[in-house]
Amino acid sequence: MRPIRNTIPLDQAKAIIDRAIRPIERVERVTLLEAHGRVLAQDIVSTSDVPPFARASMDGYAVRAADTSGASRTDPKILRRIEQLFTGQVSTHTLASGQCIEIATGAPMPAGADAVVIVEDTDATDDQISVFTAVRPRQNVGRQGADIQAGHHVLRAGDLLTPSRLGAVAALGIPHLDVYVRPRVAVLSTGNEIVDPGETLAAGQIYDINKYTVSAVIADHGGVPALYRNVTDTIEDLSRAVDECLEEDVLVFSGGSSVGERDLILDVIAAKGEVLFHGISVKPGKPTAFGMIGGKPFFGMPGYPTSCLTNAYVLLAPALRRIARLPAWSRPSISLPLGERIASATGRHQFYTVRIENGTAMPAFKASGDITSMSRADGYIEISADVDVVEQGTLVDVKFF
Amino acid sequence: MRPIRNTIPLDQAKAIIDRAIRPIERVERVTLLEAHGRVLAQDIVSTSDVPPFARASMDGYAVRAADTSGASRTDPKILRRIEQLFTGQVSTHTLASGQCIEIATGAPMPAGADAVVIVEDTDATDDQISVFTAVRPRQNVGRQGADIQAGHHVLRAGDLLTPSRLGAVAALGIPHLDVYVRPRVAVLSTGNEIVDPGETLAAGQIYDINKYTVSAVIADHGGVPALYRNVTDTIEDLSRAVDECLEEDVLVFSGGSSVGERDLILDVIAAKGEVLFHGISVKPGKPTAFGMIGGKPFFGMPGYPTSCLTNAYVLLAPALRRIARLPAWSRPSISLPLGERIASATGRHQFYTVRIENGTAMPAFKASGDITSMSRADGYIEISADVDVVEQGTLVDVKFF
Repeated sequence: MRPIRNTIPLDQAKAIIDRAIRPIERVERVTLLEAHGRVLAQDIVSTSDVPPFARASMDGYAVRAADTSGASRTDPKILRRIEQLFTGQVSTHTLASGQCIEIATGAPMPAGADAVVIVEDTDATDDQISVFTAVRPRQNVGRQGADIQAGHHVLRAGDLLTPSRLGAVAALGIPHLDVYVRPRVAVLSTGNEIVDPGETLAAGQIYDINKYTVSAVIADHGGVPALYRNVTDTIEDLSRAVDECLEEDVLVFSGGSSVGERDLILDVIAAKGEVLFHGISVKPGKPTAFGMIGGKPFFGMPGYPTSCLTNAYVLLAPALRRIARLPAWSRPSISLPLGERIASATGRHQFYTVRIENGTAMPAFKASGDITSMSRADGYIEISADVDVVEQGTLVDVKFF
Repeated sequence: MRPIRNTIPLDQAKAIIDRAIRPIERVERVTLLEAHGRVLAQDIVSTSDVPPFARASMDGYAVRAADTSGASRTDPKILRRIEQLFTGQVSTHTLASGQCIEIATGAPMPAGADAVVIVEDTDATDDQISVFTAVRPRQNVGRQGADIQAGHHVLRAGDLLTPSRLGAVAALGIPHLDVYVRPRVAVLSTGNEIVDPGETLAAGQIYDINKYTVSAVIADHGGVPALYRNVTDTIEDLSRAVDECLEEDVLVFSGGSSVGERDLILDVIAAKGEVLFHGISVKPGKPTAFGMIGGKPFFGMPGYPTSCLTNAYVLLAPALRRIARLPAWSRPSISLPLGERIASATGRHQFYTVRIENGTAMPAFKASGDITSMSRADGYIEISADVDVVEQGTLVDVKFF
């Protein structure tokens, strides 16, 4: 057995990971609908005006503004309607003085017209339209290119494709986009005792939890989980598994990084690449390793489910977002009084799960091996390494899962 | 033309929608991985203990606690190692007094042993193990069922399946779950001027935006967008389109609800079902209709892209979450000083898009027809109907897109 003797602070672990990883470079072409939530890999420059023509921005009558000068309820101007124009239709008329064209919002302005009187400010008797208000030139008219002008830089490579940005791309008539590929993450559980749900447990065996929790976190933070078969604790099996997983962009193994599993995985990583740290002064999550193999980041997660999932949130998710080129993300949080005293004389930075009950944060942490430490919690609080006790009633910052 | 004469307040519109819709009842069976983010449709009761056996919770030596009584660095107790036990292995020995078994975290406790001395508190010379600390019975032992006891209600129907809850299900060995079906939402754009991206624009035509923005919002809030072909403004086409879309759970049409498009869609809804409101006193988004057809909610969204997307966020997303049985959701927000005065004498509740610049919220709204009012914004502020002016420097609550 080789105990973890030297742990590093959490911030140092994060910094080491951050220096080692690189944003993904591979690009794929997807449809507009598929592009939602993806990261753009090209600049989008408009090749035409949006809208491509001046249009009515309200329902009413296209007029020559000069014809409405002095119009009021008591002294309306009477114009002759020569046409009714719906969206998608182009007028063949050129408006002369004294004439108007009934026009729908979005329809192209007819030649000769320079303003729209809204329908609420008019009255119609057959083709005789009474106009009750004067309008200025361009009033109620959306000018050509008002939304996007030709030659404008609409989006840039690296922009996250939100609903409104997809809308801007659609407005330009572009049906496909080049986006960065989602990093593929090999997820694998090690340990002789691990069995997949649906199978039968033999004596001494337990069901695998980590593949499922880690995969869910990966999917939430821009990655594509690629599940690999469970691996037993032998150098040969682990070595073969690492080789297979190197096809993906990132490797996440759980188990095998505590001393009990004989550190075999660390030996494998050291032989094929470089171990950059092993052991973080956090609780839960201390026996976590990180290394690089052939340019691919390797996360050696603890086997304990709560330790593994906590570090998936704290270390893996931010790293994956950077690889996927997604913006950094912080959990929604709420400040609440602590419902019960917590003693925390660990000398480690602690992630302590809590449940929200009657407006207080109630401790929910059981043990690192207990997934219910998290599944019955609403979120967690952080207790720094130099704090031994957090008293009942202390305001704590609860970060939601 | 039939102008919208009577608008209702936003809260009333929300209440009408909320009374009309029902949470989905259909259920489907999915794998654990597919279940992420879904809503559970069954209770999960544990049929066995997790872990199914008492196990070492630290690496070290399984002992009889009584054998370690009085042990210290200066006066170690010497025990004889009779076996080395890894995870997944079951000891065939029953520990006698004076004996110990080297044990890995997670390995089942051997018969006769009642505690674990951690490896750091020992020293080994061949099979002679010096124990430097006394341990209490059950110390460093995870008892059988410590995480989940047989018969325990682990999850209930209606629970959202988060990573840690999926972990709890995996721990029980359950490979499939019954979850509520994601509501399918028919998304359709109406208007003679609407053309899909990738096609060529004729005079008077513009590219469709709303199908893409609305679909993205639907996917973000638990729905499955089902895109239907664009429809021209004729009673026959709209009627046929509504009939086709009734195959889905929710209908979202954009365009056709302002006066210009001749209110045809309202006539179609009234003929097939019931229009529950038409016109909301918000800006943008006034010409929005809502009705029910054959038990299916129908959202008639404005054709203007910013109006449509705003109401997709404000009205559709919360309704869809309730139908999908997802928990209510509120946007992350930040309080910032307004960077420029906004005049808002509209008498309508206003959603005003802003961009964050140098720690201030800068107005970004152009016009309801301009998608760049949103695609170049970071979020929005709300200005209530009775407020005419918001002065520069006023602290405003920016809600992020």
